Amino acid sequence: MKVHIRSLIDQMTLEEKAGLCSGLDFWNTKGIERLGIPSLMVTDGPHGLRKQKEGADHLGLHNSVPATCFPSAAGMASSWNRELIGQVGKALGEESQAENVAVLLGPGVNIKRSPLCGRNFEYFSEDPFLSSEMAAHHIKGVQSQGVGTSLKHFAANNQEHRRMSVDAVIDERTLREIYLASFEGAVKQSQPWSVMCAYNRVNGEYASENEYLLTKILRDEWGFEGFVVSDWGAVNERVKALVAGLELEMPSSTGIGDAKLVAAVRSGELPEETLNLAVERLLTFIFKAVDNRKPGAAYDPEAHHALARKMAEESMVLLKNEDGILPLRKQGKIAVIGEFAKNPRYQGGGSSHVNPTKLDDALEEMEAIAGASVAFMYAQGYKLESDDIDDLLVAEARETAGKGDAAVLFIGLPDRYESEGYDRTHMEIPDNHRALIEAVSEVQPNLVVVLSNGSPVEMPWIGKVKAVLEGYLGGQAFGGAVAALLLGEANPSGKLAETFPVKLSDNPSYLNFPGEGDKVEYKEGLFVGYRYYDKKEVEPLFPFGHGLSYTRFEYSDLKVDKQSLMDNEKLQVSVTVANAGGRAGKEIVQLYVRDVESSVIRPQKELKGFAKVELQQGERKTVTFELDKRAFAYYNVERKDWHVETGTFELLVGQSSREIVLSAAVEVESSEPLAVVFDRNTNIGDLMANPRTAGKANAFIANFGLEEALGDNPEMFLAMMRYMPLRAMIGFGQGKYTEEMLARDLAELNGLAALTS
Amino acid sequence: MKVHIRSLIDQMTLEEKAGLCSGLDFWNTKGIERLGIPSLMVTDGPHGLRKQKEGADHLGLHNSVPATCFPSAAGMASSWNRELIGQVGKALGEESQAENVAVLLGPGVNIKRSPLCGRNFEYFSEDPFLSSEMAAHHIKGVQSQGVGTSLKHFAANNQEHRRMSVDAVIDERTLREIYLASFEGAVKQSQPWSVMCAYNRVNGEYASENEYLLTKILRDEWGFEGFVVSDWGAVNERVKALVAGLELEMPSSTGIGDAKLVAAVRSGELPEETLNLAVERLLTFIFKAVDNRKPGAAYDPEAHHALARKMAEESMVLLKNEDGILPLRKQGKIAVIGEFAKNPRYQGGGSSHVNPTKLDDALEEMEAIAGASVAFMYAQGYKLESDDIDDLLVAEARETAGKGDAAVLFIGLPDRYESEGYDRTHMEIPDNHRALIEAVSEVQPNLVVVLSNGSPVEMPWIGKVKAVLEGYLGGQAFGGAVAALLLGEANPSGKLAETFPVKLSDNPSYLNFPGEGDKVEYKEGLFVGYRYYDKKEVEPLFPFGHGLSYTRFEYSDLKVDKQSLMDNEKLQVSVTVANAGGRAGKEIVQLYVRDVESSVIRPQKELKGFAKVELQQGERKTVTFELDKRAFAYYNVERKDWHVETGTFELLVGQSSREIVLSAAVEVESSEPLAVVFDRNTNIGDLMANPRTAGKANAFIANFGLEEALGDNPEMFLAMMRYMPLRAMIGFGQGKYTEEMLARDLAELNGLAALTS
Repeated sequence: MKVHIRSLIDQMTLEEKAGLCSGLDFWNTKGIERLGIPSLMVTDGPHGLRKQKEGADHLGLHNSVPATCFPSAAGMASSWNRELIGQVGKALGEESQAENVAVLLGPGVNIKRSPLCGRNFEYFSEDPFLSSEMAAHHIKGVQSQGVGTSLKHFAANNQEHRRMSVDAVIDERTLREIYLASFEGAVKQSQPWSVMCAYNRVNGEYASENEYLLTKILRDEWGFEGFVVSDWGAVNERVKALVAGLELEMPSSTGIGDAKLVAAVRSGELPEETLNLAVERLLTFIFKAVDNRKPGAAYDPEAHHALARKMAEESMVLLKNEDGILPLRKQGKIAVIGEFAKNPRYQGGGSSHVNPTKLDDALEEMEAIAGASVAFMYAQGYKLESDDIDDLLVAEARETAGKGDAAVLFIGLPDRYESEGYDRTHMEIPDNHRALIEAVSEVQPNLVVVLSNGSPVEMPWIGKVKAVLEGYLGGQAFGGAVAALLLGEANPSGKLAETFPVKLSDNPSYLNFPGEGDKVEYKEGLFVGYRYYDKKEVEPLFPFGHGLSYTRFEYSDLKVDKQSLMDNEKLQVSVTVANAGGRAGKEIVQLYVRDVESSVIRPQKELKGFAKVELQQGERKTVTFELDKRAFAYYNVERKDWHVETGTFELLVGQSSREIVLSAAVEVESSEPLAVVFDRNTNIGDLMANPRTAGKANAFIANFGLEEALGDNPEMFLAMMRYMPLRAMIGFGQGKYTEEMLARDLAELNGLAALTS
Repeated sequence: MKVHIRSLIDQMTLEEKAGLCSGLDFWNTKGIERLGIPSLMVTDGPHGLRKQKEGADHLGLHNSVPATCFPSAAGMASSWNRELIGQVGKALGEESQAENVAVLLGPGVNIKRSPLCGRNFEYFSEDPFLSSEMAAHHIKGVQSQGVGTSLKHFAANNQEHRRMSVDAVIDERTLREIYLASFEGAVKQSQPWSVMCAYNRVNGEYASENEYLLTKILRDEWGFEGFVVSDWGAVNERVKALVAGLELEMPSSTGIGDAKLVAAVRSGELPEETLNLAVERLLTFIFKAVDNRKPGAAYDPEAHHALARKMAEESMVLLKNEDGILPLRKQGKIAVIGEFAKNPRYQGGGSSHVNPTKLDDALEEMEAIAGASVAFMYAQGYKLESDDIDDLLVAEARETAGKGDAAVLFIGLPDRYESEGYDRTHMEIPDNHRALIEAVSEVQPNLVVVLSNGSPVEMPWIGKVKAVLEGYLGGQAFGGAVAALLLGEANPSGKLAETFPVKLSDNPSYLNFPGEGDKVEYKEGLFVGYRYYDKKEVEPLFPFGHGLSYTRFEYSDLKVDKQSLMDNEKLQVSVTVANAGGRAGKEIVQLYVRDVESSVIRPQKELKGFAKVELQQGERKTVTFELDKRAFAYYNVERKDWHVETGTFELLVGQSSREIVLSAAVEVESSEPLAVVFDRNTNIGDLMANPRTAGKANAFIANFGLEEALGDNPEMFLAMMRYMPLRAMIGFGQGKYTEEMLARDLAELNGLAALTS
């Protein structure tokens, strides 16, 4: 194949090669008929196919062929179910084959830095480990069907505000540990056919022109073998982008970008070999797609709808359930309030907008499950197109709710609140949704709220309702899933993949979101999501990893296969989980790792393992996690590599990030300890802290002739010594200590430090 | 004089010139007898003279001549009384003259970034305006006596942890608006004879070698005319330091630094002119000191003690006073608990440690005021030297407290908690102080706490006590002042110059204090102190500017002399304050300014004026503030200057930063608006926002041929347009728009933007 491609490149004109590096139109790559190179279709998106119909608009905002609309990524991540998202990926691959689509443009793994980001519904989590795991299994599923994916948006596209011009300024360690880690795990595990570069700049360079990201990190460090495609319109300077590692410009550059490449090769600015390499990568993809085509492929829309429902059930998170009001008893009268009950908000706006094959109605689904045993009453409550409170609708809702034994309110965020293209500016639900809670709670104590939204909302009204089921954007089977959960046909098993703060200003990015002009500085650094709430001791409304069940789980027997290990060894951690409640259910077991003491600033704990286990009533299972070096490491900026600092690490097993139920400690030793080098500005205290040089340090202090100072304020004296650089002994020694003595002592100290133990 | 100095320099050898640039010993500059250049003494510190006795240790930690110990800076700042701190400065100048001291090493104006900084007691505030105002009046007072000051520690010495090696990494705007502003106001208003450079590095360069700080900003921008002295031992490379603008190395370099200067001049590395300039500055100071000497000067220790008491009374802050328990009634039985009542904690450790002329005992002072009408009972409660709970002492305290009509607990932080040289690691009071509150509160509801500490403490016990009087480190007259306040002889009039957070982790520097290794990043940026608590909506325990009185004040008639102004005009703001309570008192009127809308990230409000007014019962006074450009400006990093953004500003008059009682709005127009330049990456939305280019922007959108998209999701469509860079029209236009059209349009747009209105 490689030979075939090389020979094809040899036959291509310069213009043909340059031409291959941009799209034919909005959704297709170019073909070259005379050489048998076909044109291929790529299309959005991560939770359903959005294949544009012929003759649709250029931006491609509407008119797509019907496809299964699965829950959006925010919901799927809340399932924490690798296998299930893999099944969704497989289904998406089947639909792509049926529609002759070569690459599905997704999934998106940008980190949820702020709950305001308009595109959060398309992203998985605030945590890079969870995000990359979900993405990897999504990709594996799609690609198992011979269809490519495009992991996006690489990188640091964490807001829509000024997304095509803003510069995300992020320190290297934060970039590595948080924002890139979310991509890294997915690339390494699942080798997506392509990666889509982001619109924005990262540390001064457009992502589309960022050689550090597109080549050095993505290809050289992570071993990415596919091609890089621009987000639609993300190319700024075509030649620079190609050199940086961006092979495919989309959409069509209408010949402009191609002409620039040709001119650059002709002028000698761009080596033709660079262009050939890009073409080789594109041809490799094209022929791989050709080889994997399944002509005449079809899929079963009903089976995919059932899968969408299963995923929706596992995506939803039961946030609160006072007095066990859920599941609702299948008897008496239930008031169902809110337009979303019949006309669901089930997906977000923008490139991921899918034309569903069918669409469940929650009220009908509830009626279908409950049969005649329940009398359902419905009131609209609000209109979708406005936030204005309609007093008549509210009064009607209040009256309807008052007649029920319980009331279920379907509220959340309307379409226009969340979309690609812009961010929210606050976290409130619309006035007319809020008014409904106020009014209904006055007459109905048994109040359940079902939320439809792609990202957290503030809940100042939480005390007025008994239960909250976070439905996220549940896809086309939202209605069926929510009905099954409310009525106990299914048991909630989702947990939050993001923190719900009490108020917007609690969020770590708040002071620096969405930035100033075309610059946004990520000054919160590593402290994104629970890493911030934990360390700052800010109580969230609902913490990362939180989610209730209709049954109850008990944890025991946390075990490690060794108490101490080298950082290049693997550690097995196992824990037993039992279903101690009254019905079958699934539990998400979370494993966090904490570096007890560190010379660098680290989060209190970080998610390093999770497993979703299904348990029948009374059943128990043992879950085993394997931890490797990365589970203990931080990114060392000087060394430009991951580093484990020798010491004690705690393994924390939790039902959520704030409900740690078991813990154990292990000792991990670095196989590549950092070299110690002393210089004239080394503090005496640093010598004291090192067993090899402590003796020398004590001699310095003794020779200082200030022992008498100990009597007055020993703590101050010792602190002054501790923080005194060696060169200061010359001045404070007032003649007793010289530059020559310092040079001699430094040589000796560095000799001591370099000794291997 | 200048001629005389020049001629002296001509007569000096290279060695003599180099020699003059370092100290003779720990506390004296060098003299040159043959040329009639005297040796002069410099000595600590800002709230009292610490003149070393002959033969004391080198680090100079103990044995100083008696001097009046005034409240430390943390307390003095809480007085917000410019005139009174000026009187303290004058008294310090008198004592310096009496002791033949040429320069008093203070005041310190480092900003309280973290409550943990071990030297916070020596600093004024978390707010640069309050800090610089207090410093300026302190300096004016000292220097009115012909004695110099040394404003310290320049700059960004905001922690003791690794203070001689740590690099404070601070963005330019934060440096200018917060950390340098505290020095800037003092230098410009009061021209201190010297400035002391800090130990630490600032953005990579040692403060002692930082030409940007020591010359470009301090001298060239601010017009500083004095000399720069190193903090003791702060010189790293002597030649580099001299070139950067550090004239005097202290203490003596024992010839080493001098020899380096000589060698550098000889080798041509250091131009002799640079050395001559340094010598000229030092000689200017030396002869100014000589001219201002007052041989045989003396001072009245009793008068200074009375002044110290007055300052202590105004320094203390009544934080809480439930049921008006304070002032205590002069009758019945009062239990006085705690070693601090007899053995006060009245100053901090380190270079500022003063040997007081006398020392008040709070219990004796209370007895003296109350006479026979009150029966005082005393219990020690805890021992100073340990945090361990002494059950016997606690039991005794509890018993004593139970017998009183009220109890006063003297607690806080022992000496070893706060000192130069190290930082605290937590904000708790010692266990044995806390235990006392617990025990006593069980038997005595009328519980008053008097705190002695240099920096905030957490008060999880606040609900168990009726009153808290923050005494800070009250100096030698602490006892008299606190007695007068407790018994109503004096009326509390201090207000907090810093925020008291509920818990340490609420502090903005928490995630990045004290840094990693030798680097501390000020990632909270501008959001220091109340600027953070305001913006993040974090409720403090007690906010900046808070302080209660035994009387009550009413505000009215907030007036401005113009509703709109140019930024180079001045604005007069006046407000009337009335004493509506039952006794005479002093109120601190605070004026904050808020930029209602800004294109840069700004704090919610900033202190820009304050006045302390004394009011008899029923009296009213009108206070007038003058605001200039700086009151509305932010530091524009690109322009490297202060800039006012045209728009509405709110003037907020408050009794504290959280109790705004009156507000008004004015329009301020920039006299130097920022130039607008459009380029290929300018967003269409930025053209829409500019009245001169909005028409053109709308034409772009119309020509885009996507009007039909409006029907589907108009918000998304408009957002996409708003955030679309002009160059993207080429790609999305798919042939309709070219590079040539863009170039032509940019020329036209920049022409429109450049038009003057």
